[in-house]
Amino acid sequence: MAWNVYLAGEIHSDWRERIAEGAKQAGLDVTFSSPVTDHGASDDVGVAILGKEDDAFWKDHKGAGVNAIRTQTLIRQADVVVVRFGEKYKQWNAAFDAGFAAALGKPIVTLHPPDHDHALKEIDRAAMATAESPDQVVDVLRYVLNGKLPTG
Amino acid sequence: MAWNVYLAGEIHSDWRERIAEGAKQAGLDVTFSSPVTDHGASDDVGVAILGKEDDAFWKDHKGAGVNAIRTQTLIRQADVVVVRFGEKYKQWNAAFDAGFAAALGKPIVTLHPPDHDHALKEIDRAAMATAESPDQVVDVLRYVLNGKLPTG
Amino acid sequence: MAWNVYLAGEIHSDWRERIAEGAKQAGLDVTFSSPVTDHGASDDVGVAILGKEDDAFWKDHKGAGVNAIRTQTLIRQADVVVVRFGEKYKQWNAAFDAGFAAALGKPIVTLHPPDHDHALKEIDRAAMATAESPDQVVDVLRYVLNGKLPTG
Amino acid sequence: MAWNVYLAGEIHSDWRERIAEGAKQAGLDVTFSSPVTDHGASDDVGVAILGKEDDAFWKDHKGAGVNAIRTQTLIRQADVVVVRFGEKYKQWNAAFDAGFAAALGKPIVTLHPPDHDHALKEIDRAAMATAESPDQVVDVLRYVLNGKLPTG
Amino acid sequence: MAWNVYLAGEIHSDWRERIAEGAKQAGLDVTFSSPVTDHGASDDVGVAILGKEDDAFWKDHKGAGVNAIRTQTLIRQADVVVVRFGEKYKQWNAAFDAGFAAALGKPIVTLHPPDHDHALKEIDRAAMATAESPDQVVDVLRYVLNGKLPTG
Amino acid sequence: MAWNVYLAGEIHSDWRERIAEGAKQAGLDVTFSSPVTDHGASDDVGVAILGKEDDAFWKDHKGAGVNAIRTQTLIRQADVVVVRFGEKYKQWNAAFDAGFAAALGKPIVTLHPPDHDHALKEIDRAAMATAESPDQVVDVLRYVLNGKLPTG
Amino acid sequence: MAWNVYLAGEIHSDWRERIAEGAKQAGLDVTFSSPVTDHGASDDVGVAILGKEDDAFWKDHKGAGVNAIRTQTLIRQADVVVVRFGEKYKQWNAAFDAGFAAALGKPIVTLHPPDHDHALKEIDRAAMATAESPDQVVDVLRYVLNGKLPTG
Amino acid sequence: MAWNVYLAGEIHSDWRERIAEGAKQAGLDVTFSSPVTDHGASDDVGVAILGKEDDAFWKDHKGAGVNAIRTQTLIRQADVVVVRFGEKYKQWNAAFDAGFAAALGKPIVTLHPPDHDHALKEIDRAAMATAESPDQVVDVLRYVLNGKLPTG
Repeated sequence: MAWNVYLAGEIHSDWRERIAEGAKQAGLDVTFSSPVTDHGASDDVGVAILGKEDDAFWKDHKGAGVNAIRTQTLIRQADVVVVRFGEKYKQWNAAFDAGFAAALGKPIVTLHPPDHDHALKEIDRAAMATAESPDQVVDVLRYVLNGKLPTG
Repeated sequence: MAWNVYLAGEIHSDWRERIAEGAKQAGLDVTFSSPVTDHGASDDVGVAILGKEDDAFWKDHKGAGVNAIRTQTLIRQADVVVVRFGEKYKQWNAAFDAGFAAALGKPIVTLHPPDHDHALKEIDRAAMATAESPDQVVDVLRYVLNGKLPTG
Repeated sequence: MAWNVYLAGEIHSDWRERIAEGAKQAGLDVTFSSPVTDHGASDDVGVAILGKEDDAFWKDHKGAGVNAIRTQTLIRQADVVVVRFGEKYKQWNAAFDAGFAAALGKPIVTLHPPDHDHALKEIDRAAMATAESPDQVVDVLRYVLNGKLPTG
Repeated sequence: MAWNVYLAGEIHSDWRERIAEGAKQAGLDVTFSSPVTDHGASDDVGVAILGKEDDAFWKDHKGAGVNAIRTQTLIRQADVVVVRFGEKYKQWNAAFDAGFAAALGKPIVTLHPPDHDHALKEIDRAAMATAESPDQVVDVLRYVLNGKLPTG
Repeated sequence: MAWNVYLAGEIHSDWRERIAEGAKQAGLDVTFSSPVTDHGASDDVGVAILGKEDDAFWKDHKGAGVNAIRTQTLIRQADVVVVRFGEKYKQWNAAFDAGFAAALGKPIVTLHPPDHDHALKEIDRAAMATAESPDQVVDVLRYVLNGKLPTG
Repeated sequence: MAWNVYLAGEIHSDWRERIAEGAKQAGLDVTFSSPVTDHGASDDVGVAILGKEDDAFWKDHKGAGVNAIRTQTLIRQADVVVVRFGEKYKQWNAAFDAGFAAALGKPIVTLHPPDHDHALKEIDRAAMATAESPDQVVDVLRYVLNGKLPTG
Repeated sequence: MAWNVYLAGEIHSDWRERIAEGAKQAGLDVTFSSPVTDHGASDDVGVAILGKEDDAFWKDHKGAGVNAIRTQTLIRQADVVVVRFGEKYKQWNAAFDAGFAAALGKPIVTLHPPDHDHALKEIDRAAMATAESPDQVVDVLRYVLNGKLPTG
Repeated sequence: MAWNVYLAGEIHSDWRERIAEGAKQAGLDVTFSSPVTDHGASDDVGVAILGKEDDAFWKDHKGAGVNAIRTQTLIRQADVVVVRFGEKYKQWNAAFDAGFAAALGKPIVTLHPPDHDHALKEIDRAAMATAESPDQVVDVLRYVLNGKLPTG
């Protein structure tokens, strides 16, 4: 059966597309899922659907609730959770997702540049693998599903 | 894969049909389930199948057991639980279902008129979203599944 | 070891005191816990501690969060959960607590007047016993702990 | 019985001491626990005990493993988890701890300045309360344990 | 999706066939499973496959192990567990299966003649419904799946 | 810390007293618990406390509910569950308790005469040890707690 | 539905192929899964994908992480876990997988030559069946799925 | 509160005593537990208590059952599990215990000479720390409990 792989974290670069494209070229039987990556929609969803808020805290709170329906359900359904930390922003929700996945016993793959190594040491320790590039994530998935090392 | 959405609570208005119709028009990959909404059948099922009771308490008890086979199984299978509180009646079973879903870690969406806000504050707090109309529930589901905000 | 008994529900009569007094007289090794029963404090706690809110919904939301820290923790620690439904009010949080306890596998004792029987049939079905008076709850606890029937 | 409260997150200010002092003055029956807050010891523990590493990644990895024995055990034992985010640093491990606690069903209190509100919206949404000051956390604990609002 | 219904207990009458036939006529979307009902095969399987035993206790032990692979897996996969107690034999494994299912939170339907009522009171109490005939079990399943009362 | 040992099953002989006496003489740090062994009280408890029933089924149902509060709580608290099957009666509740304990992962010791071996093969298979006498159960507990074989 | 059977342990003989071939001939509805059985790939995967290591310990550590993504996921998905111990090597990972499966409540079938009986007694005790040959494992699966004893 | 530390594995050297002595000197609030380390008693316990067996397999089986009551209960109660692999023997039960502990989410510390590194790579990967000497285990415990690095 297909593996469910949840792609958590940074939404400002094309890493999800690169992993999906690599998996497709490798012919992997994988279904990817992710949070809503349209930043504006993600920020506005609470008030856009459930009504305006004057207070920014509650606007965020409403939106975060709707987003959590999606993210927590998809993490629970996932066989593997990939968590990407980019160069910028706090990205605390990525770390939160990693902790959530860890407590559920989901295998985690972290994806980040090496200069985050020290700041991410607790999360990397909870992960089964730490990658620097989307290609490495594809290679990990190919091996995990098909038992094949990358060629070349 | 399709999401399982359980529609708990009030059975005296057409809110379930409105959500189902809205989800259909939005093309959402959702499977809805619900308690038995035929009030008479729901009340009588115990004695109708398993034999008469002289005592109203045990008539209710028998019927509630058969209904619980359905409701608890469907709540366990659900990805999202929507709980509707209407204008009338005690609706304690709706609140019970919400508590049951919460303890299982299911994301909850509550649906009720604003004048119930104070009485439902504990349940709204346990929910990820509180809606006033079936259309808002459809909008939440569209966003959760497809990442799209309502247009217009 | 002492049994932890959580007393959920109605806060407008002295039923908790009557159970505690009865248990004391019976010499039962029981520790009782309950939600905060000071209605005003319970309603105001969110804004009193964490800051004012203009919107009643968010005032309730804040307060319900703080109360949930107490109630959900105590329900998780409980060996038995007693849920009382009184004559008045919606009491949806009592029903929510019952559902929460049921999903955790906690044995439930419901306590309510017989005229609520039909409206509470789902919750009574999920309970191990349904009592009409605090004395009966004490009698249940005496039997459960010490194996003694009430005398006289 | 005493409540176990785990104090996760930032280790560069005296917020833990202030909460502990406040709880002591309030006479609360609370046992606090925390990660090792000696930054140097925390960073060096892996190599100090288990042998040198040339590679910084593995030095961090070793240390994070030993620290995780402490932190994950204490979070599992906790009744309440307070997570503090300070002004500086990435603090991804604080967010990871919050996610870990959330998936275990532990009630969370977040503690951070308001300017982090937007970046922490997902974690605040998963929390039962969001505080700005250690005093507010003490007030929450006083209410949760003793049902008393702050005077004054 | 189809419901999985496990039919536990007595293997000396045709009650399973009667339920399956009734469900088929009712057009129910149900998949039935059961223990191996060939009594001789069930008793001999351990030694027939894994080698002879001189001691009857270990012959039984071996066979019970192989049968448990089937029964415990199917009970875990079941949405509903029907447990039948017949007129004869100890049938302790039926009661064991009921206890196993109860602890897993599976809804149970018991099926037995009324003269077993007193001896089975603990198990009937743990069940959601108690039936006397296979037809009643079919009626329960029809209602649970389709919300329809029996006609006639 | 003391081990909790629950003594389930037959209530017509003095096997519990013999195990307790043996454990006391051996100086074992064990706390024993059991169902209510006063047969009359156990049968009557429902109606004696919660009100008369005309129908024997519901009389049993009420009583079984109250007894289940005790038995299921004590089984959940137990480290080891001993299940005794005597010479007479159906004793389906003993088998139910064994199944309940097995699904919770509790280690089980069965205690019964050898002529029940075939009828109890599924339950003996789920047990860690099968004893014929209370003395053997004491010997098992002595070894399990203190690592000592019986002398003599 | 098809049963998922995970084949853990020894990778130096053709036992997996023999089981798969036997199951195919028997027409069993089984899906087999296994660790990566290419020994070289399994040893090298960490450094081949995620970068070189000078230290053999960390090379192994990296590789074991990637392999664990596969093995732990497949064990969690399995209905039955077969664990094979061969004549040579330590095979501690086979024993680890058995312990992992046991704690998850998965039924285990061990497969090993009789001269390992004493050394494997704890693991055989945790298993539902102990086989000496792949044919016996096929026979167990045929019985478990189809209720048929081997003929001849 | 005191931490429970289970010391699994090799029983032919004094490593447990060295850890206990070191912890005592360090003043750690730790309670140690272990399997029965009297090899002869451990091998004979089944037949010594529950009756002779002609077949060595069943003698082992009986003994392993009684030992499992102790070991699985203590692992479930443990906060930390230390697993020691010595120079000799198969020690498959040590690896089984590690897998059992890992699936329960217990933090593991492995203790073995470096020449076992390759053979133990899967288990070391599942551990939070890998030590070579009992002193290192004591140092880990001191840090985990008290936050102190070893001096000297």
